[in-house]
Amino acid sequence: MIRSFIKVNSDSHFPIQNLPYGIFQPKGTHAEPRVGVAIGEYVLDLSVLDEAGFFDYTPVKGQNVFHQSTLNPFMEMGQQAWKEVRSVLQHLLKEDVPTLRDDASLREKAFTLQSKIEMLLPVKISDYTDFYASKEHASNVGTMFRGKENALMPNWTHLPVGYHGRASSVVLSGTDIHRPQGQIKPPTVSAPEFSACRQLDFELEVGCFIGSGNQLGNPISVNKAEDHVFGLVLVNDWSARDIQAWEYQPLGPFLAKNFATSISPWVVPLEALEPFRVTGPKQDPEPLPYLKNNKAGSFDIQLEVYLKGQNMEAPERITASNYNYLYWSIAQQIAHHTITGCNLNPGDLLASGTISGPERESRGSMMELAWRGAEPLQFENGEERVWLHDGDELLMTGWCQGDGYRVGFGEVTGRVLPAKKLEWNEAVQEVR
Amino acid sequence: MIRSFIKVNSDSHFPIQNLPYGIFQPKGTHAEPRVGVAIGEYVLDLSVLDEAGFFDYTPVKGQNVFHQSTLNPFMEMGQQAWKEVRSVLQHLLKEDVPTLRDDASLREKAFTLQSKIEMLLPVKISDYTDFYASKEHASNVGTMFRGKENALMPNWTHLPVGYHGRASSVVLSGTDIHRPQGQIKPPTVSAPEFSACRQLDFELEVGCFIGSGNQLGNPISVNKAEDHVFGLVLVNDWSARDIQAWEYQPLGPFLAKNFATSISPWVVPLEALEPFRVTGPKQDPEPLPYLKNNKAGSFDIQLEVYLKGQNMEAPERITASNYNYLYWSIAQQIAHHTITGCNLNPGDLLASGTISGPERESRGSMMELAWRGAEPLQFENGEERVWLHDGDELLMTGWCQGDGYRVGFGEVTGRVLPAKKLEWNEAVQEVR
Repeated sequence: MIRSFIKVNSDSHFPIQNLPYGIFQPKGTHAEPRVGVAIGEYVLDLSVLDEAGFFDYTPVKGQNVFHQSTLNPFMEMGQQAWKEVRSVLQHLLKEDVPTLRDDASLREKAFTLQSKIEMLLPVKISDYTDFYASKEHASNVGTMFRGKENALMPNWTHLPVGYHGRASSVVLSGTDIHRPQGQIKPPTVSAPEFSACRQLDFELEVGCFIGSGNQLGNPISVNKAEDHVFGLVLVNDWSARDIQAWEYQPLGPFLAKNFATSISPWVVPLEALEPFRVTGPKQDPEPLPYLKNNKAGSFDIQLEVYLKGQNMEAPERITASNYNYLYWSIAQQIAHHTITGCNLNPGDLLASGTISGPERESRGSMMELAWRGAEPLQFENGEERVWLHDGDELLMTGWCQGDGYRVGFGEVTGRVLPAKKLEWNEAVQEVR
Repeated sequence: MIRSFIKVNSDSHFPIQNLPYGIFQPKGTHAEPRVGVAIGEYVLDLSVLDEAGFFDYTPVKGQNVFHQSTLNPFMEMGQQAWKEVRSVLQHLLKEDVPTLRDDASLREKAFTLQSKIEMLLPVKISDYTDFYASKEHASNVGTMFRGKENALMPNWTHLPVGYHGRASSVVLSGTDIHRPQGQIKPPTVSAPEFSACRQLDFELEVGCFIGSGNQLGNPISVNKAEDHVFGLVLVNDWSARDIQAWEYQPLGPFLAKNFATSISPWVVPLEALEPFRVTGPKQDPEPLPYLKNNKAGSFDIQLEVYLKGQNMEAPERITASNYNYLYWSIAQQIAHHTITGCNLNPGDLLASGTISGPERESRGSMMELAWRGAEPLQFENGEERVWLHDGDELLMTGWCQGDGYRVGFGEVTGRVLPAKKLEWNEAVQEVR
């Protein structure tokens, strides 16, 4: 097992095997944002390494892709550039390579404790697509809304169902979320009403960032699809279930989803997940040829969700799921997304949809965990939850367990704040 | 009526009353793109006027918003800047104002015949949303799919139904469209198959471009919504109906729409439409307060669609509709879009959805015109159409009729090319 000269605990998410990319800024300064890589408790500043000439024999030489406020310029360079940069970094960080290890002045400039930096949204998101790739999730939701016999729509096992989401409201982990307000129609009333959301939910997802895209009209084949993937992040797809129930027919979820979607700050390179590649669930019926992948397309990523209410002493785990429950792979999602000719661009985010497993404890949303109110979640202090309360803090985390090390995603967090008072519109005030 | 010293025919779309913005480049040169305004048969180069100091007393001074390849920097400046620039332009172009009229050298630099320029996509589109705001269209589609009794979903009269579309595949008028391929399941077969689309359609829409946006969590009130609108364009929302029918449950249209959406090149300022403001259809039931607008929210824009098959001598008109048929106004669309807190950004495109009127001749899509095959369209040369054929050229146009002048949108065109041979994937070839 390779090791770094930077001390990394065995349960750290950021060993030399990972090296996820992010955008950071030293805290409380006006220093410009730049690209960094997480290693143990530190961030390594790639703009410093670039200036020092360490990437001079890679395609990024002279491209100024690391002194940037987004990863997009680096992502656009494509797989060969990502591979070479990663290779340089793994080499420089090795315990037995003196170049960086023994250069005190360069180390001083290049490394900063993560506790002393501020992370920024890593990617300027071009388009955002959300899939619905977990069979257990689709079945749970379908059972609740249409009964067990009609749980899965007929198309579900033939194609990765997905829909376009809202790119503008994707926010960084740590951003507080005001409870959204809008139009709902509880079954007990005859006309819709204006209200703060009463069924606020989270969705445990993993998103993939497209690095290099395709031209309009030129589909990406399933076997080349992963070459376009820069890396993965955790996604919390906040959902307003009562708004969704009223609005979504016939064109799909809209306002129920676009008030906020949170992502984790570190983008884990696909290459770092390679040792954890596994075969996903058996696909039956066999997919059409354009969706048939000739290699294992899933990854063994353990996923957990924690909730901490205002009156709870510590976060309590409410879900333990795994990325490998997903029925449709990233490669299949990309091949399907582009089959009619749709062009993907650098910075596109493709989220998996809620990742639920077969057990109650592995369900990936509050709606499923509490089965729409039928099975409230119990907490240590005696509180129950059916939906999210104001003040609740959600934390999602995920990692691949290696032998003596972890390749992790860090976490995506977010706290629910009360609905905002809408000062701007007397008409709205009247009905609140 | 004000007139320009530039000769403008009474049926021209571009009199001094209009002055739509676009991005252009002299044909066949490597000159950089810049912002222009259409006037009669000419385009007026705003970067030339800017350099000459004509905007020195407006907010755009020194902002370099006209020597640009998109309108976004100008759009971001907000309503006050748009108003002042428009006012300067209308003044400079007046027949009795000598400043530009009598400056032969400046006129030479500033005006170019539209026949000698190439138009580019005017806006870098941030997010794209498509509404479903025509009651006639929603009723027609609903009747075909669910019968007359259940034509409109219960939510339809309470909120402007909309969904997130794909921004990356919005293309400029004139772009040829390859017939998309994908997964369809005709009712006569038991399993889905891979096929070129057999039910290719257009949708007649008008889109509005957001100029200045809002912060996440801060809804835009219905009565201030129009202040955020930079201008309007024609939109052809190409649709693959067979792909849509199979994929759209339960999350809405996805691949059926994201292979291409065409827009017209000139963005007509909202201010130019002011003389044509009308009250839209009476809304019953009364909308909730957050959707209640205190002024007329529609515009009298005549809309036409022409089709020219490969073997037809001339384009034939297949639809004459009107923007004022739309039930939900732009202001209501914006207020609804942001009510849960969703942030709009400069460059967001909000399309209306298909604009159908009450008569057969005013239906805005092929599916409605030919009533899913029950009433094929007849053409002069004896041909029929139920869906679009390869080689068909679609042309949409729209204008407001003033007294002796028109404020027009020009046109959005596009031709259907045969499905592409997908060389990249043998597996796909097998099943074609």
